[in-house]
Amino acid sequence: MKKISLLGATGSIGVQTLDVIGAHPEAFQLVAMSFGRNYKAGSEIIKKFKPKFVAVQDKETYEMVSKEFSHNDVKIGYGSDALIEAAIYDGVECLVNAVVGSVGLVPTLKAIENGITIALANKETLVTAGHLVIEHAKRYNVDILPVDSEHSAIFQCLQGENVKSIERLIVTASGGSFRDKKREELVEVTVEEALKHPNWSMGAKITIDSATMMNKGLEVIEAHWLFNMPYEKIDVLLHKESIIHSLVEFEDSSIIAQLGTPDMRVPIQFALTYPERLPLVKAKRLELWEVGKLHFEKADFNRYRCLQYAFDSGKIGGTMPTVLNAANEEAVSAFLRGDITFLQIEEIIERSLNKHESISHPNLEQIQFVDQQTRNFVQTLIS
Amino acid sequence: MKKISLLGATGSIGVQTLDVIGAHPEAFQLVAMSFGRNYKAGSEIIKKFKPKFVAVQDKETYEMVSKEFSHNDVKIGYGSDALIEAAIYDGVECLVNAVVGSVGLVPTLKAIENGITIALANKETLVTAGHLVIEHAKRYNVDILPVDSEHSAIFQCLQGENVKSIERLIVTASGGSFRDKKREELVEVTVEEALKHPNWSMGAKITIDSATMMNKGLEVIEAHWLFNMPYEKIDVLLHKESIIHSLVEFEDSSIIAQLGTPDMRVPIQFALTYPERLPLVKAKRLELWEVGKLHFEKADFNRYRCLQYAFDSGKIGGTMPTVLNAANEEAVSAFLRGDITFLQIEEIIERSLNKHESISHPNLEQIQFVDQQTRNFVQTLIS
Repeated sequence: MKKISLLGATGSIGVQTLDVIGAHPEAFQLVAMSFGRNYKAGSEIIKKFKPKFVAVQDKETYEMVSKEFSHNDVKIGYGSDALIEAAIYDGVECLVNAVVGSVGLVPTLKAIENGITIALANKETLVTAGHLVIEHAKRYNVDILPVDSEHSAIFQCLQGENVKSIERLIVTASGGSFRDKKREELVEVTVEEALKHPNWSMGAKITIDSATMMNKGLEVIEAHWLFNMPYEKIDVLLHKESIIHSLVEFEDSSIIAQLGTPDMRVPIQFALTYPERLPLVKAKRLELWEVGKLHFEKADFNRYRCLQYAFDSGKIGGTMPTVLNAANEEAVSAFLRGDITFLQIEEIIERSLNKHESISHPNLEQIQFVDQQTRNFVQTLIS
Repeated sequence: MKKISLLGATGSIGVQTLDVIGAHPEAFQLVAMSFGRNYKAGSEIIKKFKPKFVAVQDKETYEMVSKEFSHNDVKIGYGSDALIEAAIYDGVECLVNAVVGSVGLVPTLKAIENGITIALANKETLVTAGHLVIEHAKRYNVDILPVDSEHSAIFQCLQGENVKSIERLIVTASGGSFRDKKREELVEVTVEEALKHPNWSMGAKITIDSATMMNKGLEVIEAHWLFNMPYEKIDVLLHKESIIHSLVEFEDSSIIAQLGTPDMRVPIQFALTYPERLPLVKAKRLELWEVGKLHFEKADFNRYRCLQYAFDSGKIGGTMPTVLNAANEEAVSAFLRGDITFLQIEEIIERSLNKHESISHPNLEQIQFVDQQTRNFVQTLIS
């Protein structure tokens, strides 16, 4: 029985993680969880999974949840301290970090200090402070298991292999909502159009990130840290069917790939069952003859400028990826609110990166300072 | 330094094995070898690799080789005893069995008894006597490593995985020389046409086997034995580019695949370096965006009857696969000689199978008897 803490329980990854936990009650137990302000969904989860601790975002939600569950054996908290408490709650063996944004960083670091295995869906954690997280994980001898479909694919391809034999990681990209549009056609696209991802049903922020390809850029940085791989050995490959989730090339030119129908429960479950597997309930089996054809194209760094920004920021390192991530988060929020156009997302990120002088080997405070500074700067650009 | 014996040194797999050995003199040494009657090619190999023992097929070749190398420190032998001597020659750690046909069986068994790892390219060994070879390998705790590209692919996909989690092995098939022809168009095809394989440059027998799909049928039986997999869990998938060499589906619906440009040196080298890898000299890197598209189709068991015969024989077991293999070897020889038509290959195999009553758990003598009996029967059909 693996005791699990789930941060971001009402989000897309959270809900699918609960589906996996619920399908294998003999294998998994939800001990602690967090959610933001979605009181209705959150309280259903509490009823069904009976966690011992629940962290919510603010006092208002805290009071609603406390009232409803006052007679139950569940402890409630709110704010960032409660998020940490949920992450390291007594007995937790595996933290599924599925919150969106850099708020996921500190709970991850604290869980590592407590020897808790990290199943990481919160890619901003590694993008914004990869060196801190990885150094921490090494120091405390803790596994960081990927939950993203691409990184899980690479992780699965690497099972039983010697990492020294890796020639190249090939991260596949669907191309997002606007993959069939030319750059000049992106000028007037709407939020609604951007939210229609061709293959995956995901949260709003990551769907926009797919349309700009920043999602793939963040994944490249994440792959750099997770697999200790120089950027020169990471490639992005356009593959519109999202059937091959990523590939690893070895020094003998052999390539191992992981494939499947788009179903986030596969990488989530693999992180929870690793190094074993378990049957996936109601899985849709992939039959390649039904699919018929798989398509591949070179990723165009001019068409998808965020990809270029990500490689550049990653190679510079230091606080540059922090700026990339913070500027992107603020710009995407502004786009979702209707305050800026789609192409202004890129423009804001580029201006934020150009303005910043990277601090090498930043500590947590420096990262948090640069993160906030960048967000403030983006606000001056928007208003 | 791994000491290697190579049976079938002048054949297609043999030559490529020598290419791998020659590229890594720090890692491999050719200690013993065999070839048939190709004296010219054989003597070049002896000069270059300086093996300690060489087995040739007949006395005539033996005398020619003995004369040329009389002043060298190389021992020569001929016939089936010499083939065994080569397989288990003093110091051999790995036997690459790349002879064609069931003549590869006894040297494999003897090498197993001597604790020598088997790198098996001779698929007839497992088809004709899979249970003997596998039981023998278990008893003597010896690894049987696949050299076929498909089985090597599966083997690579299984690294680090628990075999209990396997849901299905998916063996890919190019469809062979006549994959774009309908069944009725096969009536008048020639030997020359049959020998033009679209993707792989291989020996004559295996190229004809690809055209009839018997090659894939034999591979299904081989996969059954190598990976201890029931036939219900083995599928054949048509994939005309031969880029994905095979796939493994796991119980969580995740599929792992091995890909690469068609280059037999990859599976050969992996068998020699396993569990490590080494750089492959002059490898052509696979770029999927250059390939653009991969195609998949369901394998049609009516179109490719040999595939059906193979599954049926495999499921019946006992001596039935021995009959399948012997009838096929004789029929393909007859076709290559111009004695029968392409479709008569299938007809001869079908008649041989229908006539045979399978003996379960046959010993080596029974297998050899049935093998010879089948060959005799096929001769009565041809003449």
